Amino acid sequence: MTIRATGSRAAARPARGRRVEPSRRYAVVMAGGVGTRFWPWSRESSPKQLLALTSSRSMLAETIERLAGLVPPANILVVTGRRYRRQVLAASPSLTAANVLGEPIGRNTAPCIGWATLEVLRRCPDAVTAVLSADHVLGGARAFGRDLERAFTLADRQQRLVTFGIPPSGPATGYGYLRAGHLVQGAAPAREVDAFVEKPNLATARRYVSSGKYFWNSGMFVWRADVIWRELSAHLPDLAAALEAMNRGRRRGGIAAATLDRAWPRLPSISIDYGVLERSRHVAMLPASFSWTDIGSWDAVSGLWPTDAAGNASRDPLLAMDAASNVVATRGKPVVLLGVEGLVVVDAGDALLICSRDRCQDVKGVVGRLEAAGLGSLK
Amino acid sequence: MTIRATGSRAAARPARGRRVEPSRRYAVVMAGGVGTRFWPWSRESSPKQLLALTSSRSMLAETIERLAGLVPPANILVVTGRRYRRQVLAASPSLTAANVLGEPIGRNTAPCIGWATLEVLRRCPDAVTAVLSADHVLGGARAFGRDLERAFTLADRQQRLVTFGIPPSGPATGYGYLRAGHLVQGAAPAREVDAFVEKPNLATARRYVSSGKYFWNSGMFVWRADVIWRELSAHLPDLAAALEAMNRGRRRGGIAAATLDRAWPRLPSISIDYGVLERSRHVAMLPASFSWTDIGSWDAVSGLWPTDAAGNASRDPLLAMDAASNVVATRGKPVVLLGVEGLVVVDAGDALLICSRDRCQDVKGVVGRLEAAGLGSLK
Repeated sequence: MTIRATGSRAAARPARGRRVEPSRRYAVVMAGGVGTRFWPWSRESSPKQLLALTSSRSMLAETIERLAGLVPPANILVVTGRRYRRQVLAASPSLTAANVLGEPIGRNTAPCIGWATLEVLRRCPDAVTAVLSADHVLGGARAFGRDLERAFTLADRQQRLVTFGIPPSGPATGYGYLRAGHLVQGAAPAREVDAFVEKPNLATARRYVSSGKYFWNSGMFVWRADVIWRELSAHLPDLAAALEAMNRGRRRGGIAAATLDRAWPRLPSISIDYGVLERSRHVAMLPASFSWTDIGSWDAVSGLWPTDAAGNASRDPLLAMDAASNVVATRGKPVVLLGVEGLVVVDAGDALLICSRDRCQDVKGVVGRLEAAGLGSLK
Repeated sequence: MTIRATGSRAAARPARGRRVEPSRRYAVVMAGGVGTRFWPWSRESSPKQLLALTSSRSMLAETIERLAGLVPPANILVVTGRRYRRQVLAASPSLTAANVLGEPIGRNTAPCIGWATLEVLRRCPDAVTAVLSADHVLGGARAFGRDLERAFTLADRQQRLVTFGIPPSGPATGYGYLRAGHLVQGAAPAREVDAFVEKPNLATARRYVSSGKYFWNSGMFVWRADVIWRELSAHLPDLAAALEAMNRGRRRGGIAAATLDRAWPRLPSISIDYGVLERSRHVAMLPASFSWTDIGSWDAVSGLWPTDAAGNASRDPLLAMDAASNVVATRGKPVVLLGVEGLVVVDAGDALLICSRDRCQDVKGVVGRLEAAGLGSLK
């Protein structure tokens, strides 16, 4: 990053000015949920973010390692389901027990971020926090580093709620979009956000992409801890009050399980986007120069794995004869495909899934039917 | 079976007369070949006839057990590949080493039957032999017993080469057919065989079936050992001479491996149908009253396994959602099918096959390509 002497405007609001000191940098990695669309690899006891879906390591480990040199390891918190605390600790050697917050049940992103923000503020009242998800796949480590630096600075200097916008590579219908507005003064290429829009249909998505004004809503944020807490308190006062009450019961070692069990399930299940960002006047969007994919189903992994000339994606030994556009995940077991097309084939050792690629979203529904099929142990 | 006093004609040729004494009854079970169409369950080291394809026991064990009460266990011989001798012995507790003949390589049915016939003649010069295949699936144990009794009697009294003809249940194109002629005098419902015909195309098969004159050629035979040897000597004299020479080198414990290694590969590879039966004037066909299936490929097992309302055939725990007409063989591993149709799914523990049902015949070709794909250990 170069620092230019750009005269009075830059001097007034030096968004590209001094870097945020490492001790003030924090990261909150959201790693809740099971990821049932990745059954049979994902289980209640083995959630998606702990799977080696995209590389030989878990997505959580990759997310944490991506922060090396950007956020001190001691300042990286992970919020996960309480039952996964031990596995999360095992997934990354730099994690300590005090940095893993275990939710009794999932209550969407606003309670999760609220709790983590209180914990960050307790440790460092002027922290700047990056909020990341454990199930995003990012490409371009250098670009990510540059963009995160820029976001830390923007969030700190202009007290913005910075969200990363992904320049769309196609008319995806599985993501929400951000409509970009004017450049943020003194912080180009950051832009104001004119609107948050829900997942569009294909025609609308095409229009968004061709307009050049829409970006994918990555769900990755950077903000000062005091700023997001102020905004959360303004827009979701009941949630903020409940979290503060819960936090007052904190002892050495964290909030007691009994306190959590009592308070947590009563929190509203609401997303940070809907509850805070869409209502706030302080949001800014930084167009990402790294690549980004939200790995939502087996179909999505196909783009990340080695693919043969016929479009068969697999990391396992594969013999494909007159077979095209299949996705194979068998943890090393050799597979022969003969005369088949557009399938997802997943072997988990104790269970096998054969699914049409266009039905990958419905894998979520499989899990709910296992019990009735006498296969409850595979949930 | 009832014995009727039917007057002079029956008295002249009492085909339904005295039963063949047990000590003269022999059986030869042909259990050669690998059955590569059943890959990945079948392997060079684990041939089809030793697989539990149709029940919880191997097809070979079922074939032998089917003879209980019909042929003394000591009179049941199995001809197999030499490398499978030990596995064949293990497959059935009633087998002894002296009753398992190991071919160095497969040379089709005429040499196999010729060798076994010499062995039977050595033990019992007036034996009547049933020749069966280890990879046929028969239904109706009582009907089979009745038909076999009838065939023993017919073969013994009229010195016929008796072949079982299967009343076709549909216009199968995977079987050869027998065209039935006149009733055999004094041995109804046995008929003369007017012609052996090759596997027909579908239109021809339909014509065969609607004519009522055609039966599937089961490849199951009953004959006196001296009669088949006489016919084999008449129609394949070189083969008979070579087998006799080989047999002269016989010692205690059987023919020496070195003798077999020298003589066997030089034998003509020819079927008993083509080499002897089609040329003989002593063939008779007994219409079977048991059901019969030659299990030639994964597709064929579908009819033998439990099948759900959507036509999914499986013996394994199966959850089928919007899935129809699939065949699943996973040796107990639970399988979920979602939105797929007409597939064969086979798990062998160390390898997985996903195949379109209409490509089952091509599984044979998979085995030849494993080596080049770096999967030679799975042959």
